[in-house]
Amino acid sequence: MAGRPALKGRDESGEDDDRSLAARLFAIVDAFSAPSAAASLTLTAIARRANLPLSTTHRLVAEWVAWGGLARQDDGTYALGMRLWEVGVQTPTARNLRTIALPYLEDLYEATREHVQLAILDGHDALYVEKLSGHRAVNIISRVGGRLPLHTTGVGLVLLAYAPPELIDSYLSEPLQRFLPNTVTSPEQLRRRLAGIRAQSIAHMSEEMTAGSSSIAAPIRDRTGGVVAAVSIVTRTTAKPDPVHEQAVRTAAIGVGRALGYRRAT
Amino acid sequence: MAGRPALKGRDESGEDDDRSLAARLFAIVDAFSAPSAAASLTLTAIARRANLPLSTTHRLVAEWVAWGGLARQDDGTYALGMRLWEVGVQTPTARNLRTIALPYLEDLYEATREHVQLAILDGHDALYVEKLSGHRAVNIISRVGGRLPLHTTGVGLVLLAYAPPELIDSYLSEPLQRFLPNTVTSPEQLRRRLAGIRAQSIAHMSEEMTAGSSSIAAPIRDRTGGVVAAVSIVTRTTAKPDPVHEQAVRTAAIGVGRALGYRRAT
Repeated sequence: MAGRPALKGRDESGEDDDRSLAARLFAIVDAFSAPSAAASLTLTAIARRANLPLSTTHRLVAEWVAWGGLARQDDGTYALGMRLWEVGVQTPTARNLRTIALPYLEDLYEATREHVQLAILDGHDALYVEKLSGHRAVNIISRVGGRLPLHTTGVGLVLLAYAPPELIDSYLSEPLQRFLPNTVTSPEQLRRRLAGIRAQSIAHMSEEMTAGSSSIAAPIRDRTGGVVAAVSIVTRTTAKPDPVHEQAVRTAAIGVGRALGYRRAT
Repeated sequence: MAGRPALKGRDESGEDDDRSLAARLFAIVDAFSAPSAAASLTLTAIARRANLPLSTTHRLVAEWVAWGGLARQDDGTYALGMRLWEVGVQTPTARNLRTIALPYLEDLYEATREHVQLAILDGHDALYVEKLSGHRAVNIISRVGGRLPLHTTGVGLVLLAYAPPELIDSYLSEPLQRFLPNTVTSPEQLRRRLAGIRAQSIAHMSEEMTAGSSSIAAPIRDRTGGVVAAVSIVTRTTAKPDPVHEQAVRTAAIGVGRALGYRRAT
């Protein structure tokens, strides 16, 4: 590393840090993706979140900036940079699923004029891969690249319903957060609900995450027959759900599945 | 770096490598984003593209995999991982511009049923931030996260027209690639064309990048009055362009601009 001190496991604060340099480099970027993180952070805030001394943080941030993964703002804070976006959107899973699904999501948006969402299972979360929203749709908290719990969202419940039994067991064995009075947190009730979703290939949620909003979600299968994603619309809660909505969500899910090579058993 | 040999500038092949470890780590991921790169690469291909010895590549790839930035495929090759996507889509520029623009892009898609594209200027390229495509739209080569030249695309020519004069000078002083007989590569002709775009606030391109396809693009201004992005539709080339198309592109550009805080001088 010509003209540059080698980065050692023992950092300059004298404290041991078992993390490799690469792991510490990634911790810098992870500081920005914590749910509570602001879009731009000071060097001090990055150091605290990444659990690194300030001088190490300074040097590693400079490496990210040189590559374009972080960008220095006019006010001296740092934000995630376009290079990271550019590389990230080329991830084949996200790119392929999104590219294949988008025309069907657009049809669904046109048919319903509601928020349209596409999510995949990632660990114990629903990870939102795509979202289309009109000018006048209800306020919701999901965003592309964001995560929400499996038991409180329509797409999450669908993804959980078709997850391997071990994952369902482990998810239901954890304490489940209650966001609103309607949130179902009892493992027994959730198991019955998952069975219902598998029987009907549709999930209905009403005010279990956000007051005033409801969702309808359906599973997307690929050529193996396995569920690889879920699609949903999020609407204002009404006394009587629109039957056209459920059909539109089913149609979109089947359309994407067909484009992914799914052939229904006859 | 407990139990792990320190990574040195002089690599195990005995050759000097002036790049820092971080730079070599980034070179691994850059191997996947080269225009010619396949979605998945073998370790050998990564090593060659990153200009690193195989054993270093092996170790650095393992670091990316541990973080989730690369994923090992069933066939033993590697691809960009979901963690990189997840972090990348949170980049504020891409996220804010995309979120604000999306409803207007959807309106434009509905009005025209053609490919709708949103691009920003990045270096000497048009970087595609968003793209909506219907089921039946003409084949085009742009993709989200992809780059195309400024002088051969509608969005590119708009972005170049409003770029700082130094950038225009430096772009036009380079050799400009000709893709099709229609591609304009003469600096003088391009300068006249850029002036025309600035006068009309619209760009028309016809078969300058891809045979059979034409585009109409318009500039998007933010609250400072500066052009921050360009929006376009790409259509099949027809003898007479649809006048509704041009109006729809203008309307979308003005809508996004207004949402970004642009107020036209009166």
